[in-house]
Amino acid sequence: MTYTLVLLRHGESEWNAKNLFTGWVDVPLSEKGIEEARRGGTLLTDAGVLPDVVHTSLLRRAITTANLALDAADRHWIPVRRHWRLNERHYGALQGKDKKQTLAEFGEEQFMLWRRSYDTPPPEIELGSEFSQDADPRYAGEPTVRTECLKDVLERALPYWDSAIVPDLKEGKTVLVAAHGNSIRAIVKYLDGIDDETIAGINIPTGIPLRYELDEETLKPVTKGGQYLDPDAAAEAIKAVANQGR
Amino acid sequence: MTYTLVLLRHGESEWNAKNLFTGWVDVPLSEKGIEEARRGGTLLTDAGVLPDVVHTSLLRRAITTANLALDAADRHWIPVRRHWRLNERHYGALQGKDKKQTLAEFGEEQFMLWRRSYDTPPPEIELGSEFSQDADPRYAGEPTVRTECLKDVLERALPYWDSAIVPDLKEGKTVLVAAHGNSIRAIVKYLDGIDDETIAGINIPTGIPLRYELDEETLKPVTKGGQYLDPDAAAEAIKAVANQGR
Repeated sequence: MTYTLVLLRHGESEWNAKNLFTGWVDVPLSEKGIEEARRGGTLLTDAGVLPDVVHTSLLRRAITTANLALDAADRHWIPVRRHWRLNERHYGALQGKDKKQTLAEFGEEQFMLWRRSYDTPPPEIELGSEFSQDADPRYAGEPTVRTECLKDVLERALPYWDSAIVPDLKEGKTVLVAAHGNSIRAIVKYLDGIDDETIAGINIPTGIPLRYELDEETLKPVTKGGQYLDPDAAAEAIKAVANQGR
Repeated sequence: MTYTLVLLRHGESEWNAKNLFTGWVDVPLSEKGIEEARRGGTLLTDAGVLPDVVHTSLLRRAITTANLALDAADRHWIPVRRHWRLNERHYGALQGKDKKQTLAEFGEEQFMLWRRSYDTPPPEIELGSEFSQDADPRYAGEPTVRTECLKDVLERALPYWDSAIVPDLKEGKTVLVAAHGNSIRAIVKYLDGIDDETIAGINIPTGIPLRYELDEETLKPVTKGGQYLDPDAAAEAIKAVANQGR
């Protein structure tokens, strides 16, 4: 027997469309993102993948994506769990900045280090500034996050994986995780045992459910990398993500 | 100190608009209902009422209303709990039937008895028929419901009130309940101590949050009937609901 996990990166957000670093800034889906989310739900239905429970971040673009996809899949009524530990990577002082401008200003090497290195976070965001979340009530009582690298994301996501997602999987539930490019990359790195360099080249397309069958003993993927429910669209989209900021 | 409870009837559904008995049939919101839900969220913001947790039924029209209202109020990230015990009254064999036709076919007295009597349920729905939910996976493992009167709704809603909503209130959380005309009437009957005859004349408008402050000792309303966040619109809408089927 295997357990079924489905990872879903939110549809395009208004800031994806504008090519801005978003991180924890709580922007809505674009019209295209809304369509992607609905199509994600149709892909679940077509594949016969029926989530029994959904986990989301605390960010609108993942929450709306889950809502729309589950409605389209007629699974809007399943239990919902949310946690900031599934949030996108906090982009520190880059939040709200244009990706192209940042590339021009800091150069290719620094830009790629911030975007893709495993353990180099961007500079910390100034507390109280426009795109900081230090006063946001949804994070009250939690440690203040001012910047993160992918390693930080994995380290804060893992306790939630162990304490909240794994128990649902072990009950035999089909688990949908609606989250973000980097929180999903962190989970994929962990599940597939990807090393710190190789993960830099792994991109997650928006709105295409990524299904993993996990061994019931080890909770490791039966097939490394899982399976996108629309593999052709995923391959196309992965290329596009890799070229962001160019 | 008081606890804050907010009851929100879903916006107009496609079958409200068509004047059909809906019950547990899982129809979506109409365009008007979508607007009502968003406006419900704006009313929450304007009144400074910030839900800390939301409880919904398992029906799309209440779930979507909660999603849209909370998004509009910037509270989309709060914890969500769902239960069939908050569902609309099961309308039995009337589900899917036209209200005007039913009135013409069975006469005013029988029609009003089914719509508004406290303890006379409509005839049971045939299992396996088009508008029955006996094979719906969301109710798997639960007792099969074939029809309900308001008394039945109150009796099945109360265990959820006691076991799920009261604990949230007692933690001092502002609790939003996104539900239906009759599950909200049942809660209102219970909270305000309304007798079996008087409840027949109480109607709940769609999309207008109804706020109760509850005494922390007795959990009874400080002000009977609570307060609609838009009292004028509520008064207008209540009149319209009373005239349905005419």
